[in-house]
Amino acid sequence: MNAWLEGKDFENARRRVAAALHRTPVLSLRTLGDGIGAPVWLKCENLQKTGSFKVRGALNSIACLGDGERARGVITISAGNHAQAVAWAARRTGTRAVVVMPERASRTKVAATLGYGADVVLHGTAADAFREARRRAEQDGLTFLHPFDSTAVIAGHGSTGLEIDEDLPGDKTIVVPVGGGGQIAGVAGALAGPGAPGDGASAVRIFGVEPDGAPSMRRSLDQGRAARLDATDTVADGLAPPMAGELNYRYVAEFVEDVVLVSDAEILSAMRFLLTRAKLVVEPSGAAGVAALMYGRLPVDSGRTVVALVTGGNVDDDLLVRALREGAPWP
Amino acid sequence: MNAWLEGKDFENARRRVAAALHRTPVLSLRTLGDGIGAPVWLKCENLQKTGSFKVRGALNSIACLGDGERARGVITISAGNHAQAVAWAARRTGTRAVVVMPERASRTKVAATLGYGADVVLHGTAADAFREARRRAEQDGLTFLHPFDSTAVIAGHGSTGLEIDEDLPGDKTIVVPVGGGGQIAGVAGALAGPGAPGDGASAVRIFGVEPDGAPSMRRSLDQGRAARLDATDTVADGLAPPMAGELNYRYVAEFVEDVVLVSDAEILSAMRFLLTRAKLVVEPSGAAGVAALMYGRLPVDSGRTVVALVTGGNVDDDLLVRALREGAPWP
Repeated sequence: MNAWLEGKDFENARRRVAAALHRTPVLSLRTLGDGIGAPVWLKCENLQKTGSFKVRGALNSIACLGDGERARGVITISAGNHAQAVAWAARRTGTRAVVVMPERASRTKVAATLGYGADVVLHGTAADAFREARRRAEQDGLTFLHPFDSTAVIAGHGSTGLEIDEDLPGDKTIVVPVGGGGQIAGVAGALAGPGAPGDGASAVRIFGVEPDGAPSMRRSLDQGRAARLDATDTVADGLAPPMAGELNYRYVAEFVEDVVLVSDAEILSAMRFLLTRAKLVVEPSGAAGVAALMYGRLPVDSGRTVVALVTGGNVDDDLLVRALREGAPWP
Repeated sequence: MNAWLEGKDFENARRRVAAALHRTPVLSLRTLGDGIGAPVWLKCENLQKTGSFKVRGALNSIACLGDGERARGVITISAGNHAQAVAWAARRTGTRAVVVMPERASRTKVAATLGYGADVVLHGTAADAFREARRRAEQDGLTFLHPFDSTAVIAGHGSTGLEIDEDLPGDKTIVVPVGGGGQIAGVAGALAGPGAPGDGASAVRIFGVEPDGAPSMRRSLDQGRAARLDATDTVADGLAPPMAGELNYRYVAEFVEDVVLVSDAEILSAMRFLLTRAKLVVEPSGAAGVAALMYGRLPVDSGRTVVALVTGGNVDDDLLVRALREGAPWP
């Protein structure tokens, strides 16, 4: 890859997706801000259509297809949020969608994906499901939509960053949960890449957060290339793809300050905190950034605005109950 | 009472309180809208400071006191949300606050009220607590702040209505949970009273919703004067004061179209729906309006915008778990 997406690419993607989606609110979270000594805001993509940010990239991906591709249909792989997002975006555009999901995918997410009208195939582990989706794409003439390692996905996800910057202009630190790296690549490219708003005049520091049981991007940074994981073990199903995206890794290496790790216990505590103090239902993956702030996993500049990206809210009832029962109170 | 609060009174109150508070978002709720055949929006006062709308009236009440009254301190009675609101507003203005709460008040709400720095007195039933607060006000020279039956409270709560009308201008139906009637009197006065925005040019229909175990306003309308209840029995602690306010009743009788009832089971189902579909933590009282819409308790004009006021999100963990476990799925 020689060229980064530029400001106009992100603006174009945003124009393609924004009208169909919610302009999600940024909400201040005073209790956390007081605790860490900086104003904290949540960008609430759990309140986005389909319950996560994933619909931004999915909608842009389908919008960028040719007519023939759209007519033949699309296939993707996802543990859940991208599945729902593609199903929703495909229905909206009259496109057939097949979604391969790992056998252990959240029942809530499988049901929602079926509800949006996609064909769902449950297949093996996440790595197995990736292979199966590629195989079926070839066999059935469907266009494979990668859940994160794609320019169209990254451009679509950048719209989250542009909205944050409009609502909270100026210097800030943005904290983004990282699975394959689609959201963080989009936000980093849009706000720290070439042609970003203000063209780098305002300093935007971007940090990624991964669960310590699925540290694909952390490992990628350590070894200098996109890493694969043999196994993952985390409550945050949305952050557990078996690899970091190639493109995504390059954006992170270039534009992201650091990627830090949090434990499942810290994630459950953050879910509990968000339920009880912010009154928001957030899935484990979506709570990882807040967990990193709560437990001091990343540097906070005193008084400088912090935005935690709350990426999704699709969570099984049992896990919500578990967060309430097991999540440690904070502070 | 001869005169209603007028448009400028509501605007003045709003000016006194808005800068200190969140401009809470209105969020669309497509699933519910599709189910009932009209676009549905939630005005999210569960995301307000202190977790409920009550802080609007409390802040205005304290702002309207004389210097001597503020110096001596205030006392109030509340099952919880008004307690937290007065404690928060009093601390903000350097005023001493005593809050009498019924012995069975939610532990979460008691802890939060203490956390905001108020003195808390636990005393008997809700009716007992009202008497005790009046007695202590007299004895200790404190100014009694009524939780709902007061012009300052109604004017402050009207700011919710003004925000709704700015975000969703034009014809609409607004659905408001009713306890003593503070919030509904404010919204009705601000949007359907003299000097309302557009001066009545846009038609705003306002409905109240009460739990069937605490129907004080429904009974007031039936008997033509503010009613007292001998006992209340509902999961919605915030909607169970032992009487409708006198002032509040007059606003409701004049400006509100109807007050309807919902069951505890319907409220739990609405809580569950809001958790799983809207990703919002809403307390039983705050879910009553959504419950009325889900279960067809009030007339909906096809295609006409409906706004359900989600009044608060302060709820004990056990009750959240109960809503997830016992709340009936919808539809």
